[in-house]
Amino acid sequence: MHVDSPEFEALYDAMKAFVDTCMSGHDPSHNPAHVHRVVSLANKILVEEQARRPEGQLDGASLDPTTMVEHALLQQNAPKGIASKVQKIVSHVSYTTECKDPAVVRQLIDTGYPELAVVQDADRLDAIGAIGIGRCFTFLGAVGKKYAVDGKWEMDNSIEHFSDKLEKLEGMMKTETGRKMARVRTERLNIFRGWWEEEMNDAKLTF
Amino acid sequence: MHVDSPEFEALYDAMKAFVDTCMSGHDPSHNPAHVHRVVSLANKILVEEQARRPEGQLDGASLDPTTMVEHALLQQNAPKGIASKVQKIVSHVSYTTECKDPAVVRQLIDTGYPELAVVQDADRLDAIGAIGIGRCFTFLGAVGKKYAVDGKWEMDNSIEHFSDKLEKLEGMMKTETGRKMARVRTERLNIFRGWWEEEMNDAKLTF
Repeated sequence: MHVDSPEFEALYDAMKAFVDTCMSGHDPSHNPAHVHRVVSLANKILVEEQARRPEGQLDGASLDPTTMVEHALLQQNAPKGIASKVQKIVSHVSYTTECKDPAVVRQLIDTGYPELAVVQDADRLDAIGAIGIGRCFTFLGAVGKKYAVDGKWEMDNSIEHFSDKLEKLEGMMKTETGRKMARVRTERLNIFRGWWEEEMNDAKLTF
Repeated sequence: MHVDSPEFEALYDAMKAFVDTCMSGHDPSHNPAHVHRVVSLANKILVEEQARRPEGQLDGASLDPTTMVEHALLQQNAPKGIASKVQKIVSHVSYTTECKDPAVVRQLIDTGYPELAVVQDADRLDAIGAIGIGRCFTFLGAVGKKYAVDGKWEMDNSIEHFSDKLEKLEGMMKTETGRKMARVRTERLNIFRGWWEEEMNDAKLTF
């Protein structure tokens, strides 16, 4: 199935609708718009990486706009090979999963799944910069209460998340293109944090 | 009741506890920490404005760390004059109320309630800059679904709120001190919006 074929287009449309339905109940930090941004970023990284590495190791057709699993693809008559490849990639995008065993991701990327690097980088770019900041606070508002330690549901939890995770993402980027974009967005996190500290300091009780 | 008296200190502590209780159920965009920041900012503005206008028109004791109404103060044995003054100020802090009839606020400030200018500016400073951005997205996540037009619960709603309201606040500042701080924070909104647009553009579908 070629990425320019009518079959691919139909599959793409069907899976896009599927994802929109699946994600529509989520708060704006993890809704269909997030997925669509990640898909676009992945495509942008793919195009640049393909230009950098014209030997053509990357398979564009596996970068479907989805987080769906194999069976959803098969139900839409996707080729088996693509369905299983996407499933494998989706299952290994997670930051938490990678932190537990980074070698697994490294090996997948080196042995048949180079697209995983592209998808991971795209997903992580949407977690940093201004959009990442917006998502971080939106998530806090929407579901942060559940994750509050000792009942502390405060905006500072989001700022702590910057250093707990967001500032680490740049160093985990897998593609040159992703790394370059991450540099810019991580600097934005730093600037924002500087503003935050200054403003919090302005609002300290002094009487 | 002087602001340095033990009676004032006891009243302050009692009302702080009252506010903490009242606001503790709110999401982090409008919780006790927000109130405490506004109190501190109000105090900072008060101190600077008093230095600028040493004729001493401002009554520090009416800047209690509260959004409570008259009866709550009276229950804590606050002097009647202070209780009614605070009530009047609290009732006129709102941006929406002011927009409906700006002359009312202007007149109150000019005729016996100059503290209203200080409290308003403090409250509005907490709506702009990095903290304002954080609060805006936290609010979106926590309760933005209720306010979504046509079911559009998206982070863009927060960015639209920048121009709908947040960018207008600087021009409505009532004190020189507040205006100076608002200038810095409004510029931060602009920078953040520039980042946002660039990143959203990066994540536009191009295939």
